[in-house]
Amino acid sequence: MSAPSPATVETVLHHIDAGLDASRARLFDLLRIPSISAQPAHAADCQRAADWVREQLAGLGFTVAVRPTPGHPVVVAQHPGPAGYTGPHVLFYGHYDVQPVDPLALWHTPPFEPQLVDGPHGKRFVARGAVDDKGQSMMFMEALRAWHDAGGGIPARLTLVIEGEEEVGSVNLEPFLVANKDALKSDIALISDTGMWDIDTPAVTTRLRGMAYFEVTLKAANRDLHSGLFGGSALNPINALTHILGELADADGHIQLPGFYDGVKPITNAQRAQWDALHFDEAAFLGGIGLTKPVGERGYSALERLWARPTADINGIWGGYTGPGSKTVIASEASAKVSFRLVADQDPEQVFAQFQRFVTERLPEGATVTFQTHSASQGIEVNTDQPWVRAALDVLGAEYGRPAVLMGCGGSVPVVSSLHRVLGIDTLLMGFGLDDDQIHSPNEKFEQRCFHKGMRSHARLLAKFAGG
Amino acid sequence: MSAPSPATVETVLHHIDAGLDASRARLFDLLRIPSISAQPAHAADCQRAADWVREQLAGLGFTVAVRPTPGHPVVVAQHPGPAGYTGPHVLFYGHYDVQPVDPLALWHTPPFEPQLVDGPHGKRFVARGAVDDKGQSMMFMEALRAWHDAGGGIPARLTLVIEGEEEVGSVNLEPFLVANKDALKSDIALISDTGMWDIDTPAVTTRLRGMAYFEVTLKAANRDLHSGLFGGSALNPINALTHILGELADADGHIQLPGFYDGVKPITNAQRAQWDALHFDEAAFLGGIGLTKPVGERGYSALERLWARPTADINGIWGGYTGPGSKTVIASEASAKVSFRLVADQDPEQVFAQFQRFVTERLPEGATVTFQTHSASQGIEVNTDQPWVRAALDVLGAEYGRPAVLMGCGGSVPVVSSLHRVLGIDTLLMGFGLDDDQIHSPNEKFEQRCFHKGMRSHARLLAKFAGG
Repeated sequence: MSAPSPATVETVLHHIDAGLDASRARLFDLLRIPSISAQPAHAADCQRAADWVREQLAGLGFTVAVRPTPGHPVVVAQHPGPAGYTGPHVLFYGHYDVQPVDPLALWHTPPFEPQLVDGPHGKRFVARGAVDDKGQSMMFMEALRAWHDAGGGIPARLTLVIEGEEEVGSVNLEPFLVANKDALKSDIALISDTGMWDIDTPAVTTRLRGMAYFEVTLKAANRDLHSGLFGGSALNPINALTHILGELADADGHIQLPGFYDGVKPITNAQRAQWDALHFDEAAFLGGIGLTKPVGERGYSALERLWARPTADINGIWGGYTGPGSKTVIASEASAKVSFRLVADQDPEQVFAQFQRFVTERLPEGATVTFQTHSASQGIEVNTDQPWVRAALDVLGAEYGRPAVLMGCGGSVPVVSSLHRVLGIDTLLMGFGLDDDQIHSPNEKFEQRCFHKGMRSHARLLAKFAGG
Repeated sequence: MSAPSPATVETVLHHIDAGLDASRARLFDLLRIPSISAQPAHAADCQRAADWVREQLAGLGFTVAVRPTPGHPVVVAQHPGPAGYTGPHVLFYGHYDVQPVDPLALWHTPPFEPQLVDGPHGKRFVARGAVDDKGQSMMFMEALRAWHDAGGGIPARLTLVIEGEEEVGSVNLEPFLVANKDALKSDIALISDTGMWDIDTPAVTTRLRGMAYFEVTLKAANRDLHSGLFGGSALNPINALTHILGELADADGHIQLPGFYDGVKPITNAQRAQWDALHFDEAAFLGGIGLTKPVGERGYSALERLWARPTADINGIWGGYTGPGSKTVIASEASAKVSFRLVADQDPEQVFAQFQRFVTERLPEGATVTFQTHSASQGIEVNTDQPWVRAALDVLGAEYGRPAVLMGCGGSVPVVSSLHRVLGIDTLLMGFGLDDDQIHSPNEKFEQRCFHKGMRSHARLLAKFAGG
C-alpha cells in the first residue's frame, strides 16, 4: 500500500464540497426515523434506524451486521482497508438513538421532520438528533463515502460500531464488547459526539464526565388520601421527598453524599492555567440560556465546574395531582430521577451506595423506598500524548486554519471507559457540536458549516491513518 | 299549620325503608355522570349533573333554576313548605361535582359505573362521588321525596343550593350568594358532607378546617438543558424547588412560614378533655391506610392535629423528565401544588402572603417564581348552643339508639364561612361518611347502611323543623 497523495486528499475534499446537498439529504433521511431509545413504543424505529445504517455501510463495501442485544441492536461494520494497509485498525463508535422529544410543545417544527433553516452562521439543520449523534456519525460515514466514490476506496482498516442505547446509558454495549472482543480488537477508537470550542475553533476533547443516574420512589400510605381527613397524621411522601432531595447540596453547592468527593481527582495547576487561557465567557454562556448568575460549587471557575467537578441534578420529579386546578390529595408515593455527573476517579457504584445511604438515613418512619439505576459510567481523562491526538490536532488545524484546542466536556460518553476496559484502547474524541446546539432540548440543531467541515476533517484524518 | 304527627313520621320512615332500592337506583343515575369540576373536558358533564338535579327537585314540587356562573352552574330550588309553616327557613347546601379519578389504574371498577358490592357492614356503593357529595346530597333529596310521596308534602320551607365547584374551591359560589342574597336569606343552613364517628355512632360536626391552596412554579433557563453540558453552572429549578419546599416544616412538624401560627386559636382544656374522652384509636386509623407511625406536629394528640391544628401538604409536584428510563435534562421549570389546612382564626389571604414570602426569600438568583391561588377558605367553629344542633343530636340519637357526638373534621367545606359571612347564618353539619370511605381516592365507597339511616335521619330532622 502507499499513502494517499495530497492530490487524492484534495479530490476527496472537493467531492465532499460538491456533494454537500446529497450528504445532507441522506442525514435528513436518518433524522426522519424517530429512534427514541428510552421509549418502548419506539423500539421498531430503533430497529429501522439500525437497518438504515447497515444499508449505507453495505453500499460502501463494508461487511455489516445488525446484531441483536437485550435492548436495541448494534450495527457492526468492518472493512479491511486497502491491500497492504499498515496503519492502525480504527474503531469508530457512534449511536443512532436519540433523546425523547418532550416537551413537544416547545418545538417550533416537528422533531422528526428535519428542517433546513437560516441562522447567524448560515444554514442549519433542526431536528432531534441533528447533531447528537446522527449528524456527527453521518459526517464520518459521508467522509467514507467520499473516499469510496472519489478517493480510490476506503483508505483504512475500520470497524464501525453504531449502537442504539447511548441515550439510555449504553447498558447492553459493554456485554456486547466483551462477547465480541476478538472481532472488535483494534488500535484506537474514534468518536464524534463532542463539541468544538466555538464555531471557528476546533477541539479535541480529552475529558468526559461520567454519570450515575438513579430513580428513587418513596411510598407511604397504601392509597391516595384526602388531605383534610388525614393531613396532620399521615406521612406525605412528596413532603418527605422534597425534604430529602432538598438537602442534596449545601449553600456552597457542595454535594452532601457522605464520601462523595473522596474519589475526585484534584485539578492540577497546569490544567487550571490551560483552561484559564481559554478565557471562557461564562456570562455569554449563561446569557444564551436566559440566566445571569452561575450556580454550582463555590471556589471553582466555570470550566472547572463543567469539566472537572461532579454535580447532582434532579432531572425529573413527580407525585400527586399534577393536572389542572386542585385536588386535595396526599399521594401514596412520589418519585424523582436524580443524576450525578462524575469525574475521574469517582466510582459510580460507590456513588449509588452513597445515594442510597443518604436517602435511607433521612427516610421518615413509615415510608419505604426503592431505587433503580438507569446508568453508571466513570469519568474519563484521555491520554493527550498519544500520536492520534496529535494527528487530529494537525488535521483540525489544517482544516480550520487555526490551532485546535484540548478541552473537556461536561457530558458523558460511557463507551469510552468500556472501550478502554474491554478492548484496552484509547479514544480520540473529535466532535463538531456547539454549545448552543440544544442537544436533548427542543429545537436541537446542527450548523451546516460544522457538518461540512466535520466531514472534511474526518476525510483528512482518514488520510492520516493511511499514512498521508 | 300543624306539626307532623309521630304516625306521619313513621309512615315517611317506612316509605324510605320500602323504597331503598329505588333511592339507590336514582343515586346510581347521578353517579354515572362524570361531573369532574377540575377538568375542563368534563364541563358538559357538570351541566348534565346540574340538569339531573333540577329534574329531581322539580318533580317534588320545587321551583328550580339552573343558574349559570363563570364556572359550573348552581342549582337553586325553593319550596315554601306547608301552608301556615312557622318553622325555620332551611338552606340545604350540597354539591354535584366530584374529584378527578386518577390514578385510574387503581380503581377496581370504572369510577363512573357505580357498583353495589358486599362489605363488612353489608352492601356498599362504589363510585366516584358515592359519598362525596352525591350520596350525601341524595339522602336529603330522597328524604324530601319520602315526605312528598308519603308524608303529605314537603314539610318545611326550604331552599336547596347544589353547586358544581366544591371540589375546586367554590370560587364562584360566594359571589353567587352575594348576588342572590335576598332570595337565599334563610335561618339555618344544613349540609351533609361530613362524617360519623364510626358506623354505629352518629355525629354533628362543629369544626372544619379551612384551606389555602396554591400552585407555585419556578423558572430558570429559557429552555431545557443537557445536564452534562450545563450541569454545574446552570440553575436547576427542581433542585431549587425541593430545597425550598423541603423546608416547609421543621423536624417537630412546625410549619415554617413566618407568622403562620399567629392566627391559630388555642385549644381549650375543655375541648381537649372532650376529645380525649372519644378514645380515638390512631393506630387503627393509620393501620387502615397502611401506616404505623403518625407524623405531624409534636405536642398534640391525633384528634387535635386533625381537627384543631393547621397543616402543610404538597399535593402534587412535577418537573423535568418523568417518562420511562432516563433523560439527562435540566428542566427549565418545576411546579408544585401546596395546600395549608387552616383552623379558626387563620386568614387564608395572610397565609398566601406568608407562603409567597417564604418561597421568595429562598429563591435562588436567576430564578423567577409565579403563584396561583386555587382556593382560600377559613377554618370554622360552629356554635354548639344553637337549637338546631340540639335538634340534630336528638334526631340522630333516636335513629341510632345511642347518643351522637360533637366532633371536628380535618377537611374543609368552604361554603360554611361564606354562608355565615354573606347570609349571616350558622350551618348544621350532619353527615354520614366514614373514615374509610376513600373519598378523593380510588374506589370511593358509601355504606348502604349509612345512606339508608342518613335518609331516615334527614326525614326526622325535617319533622323537627316542622315542629314535630
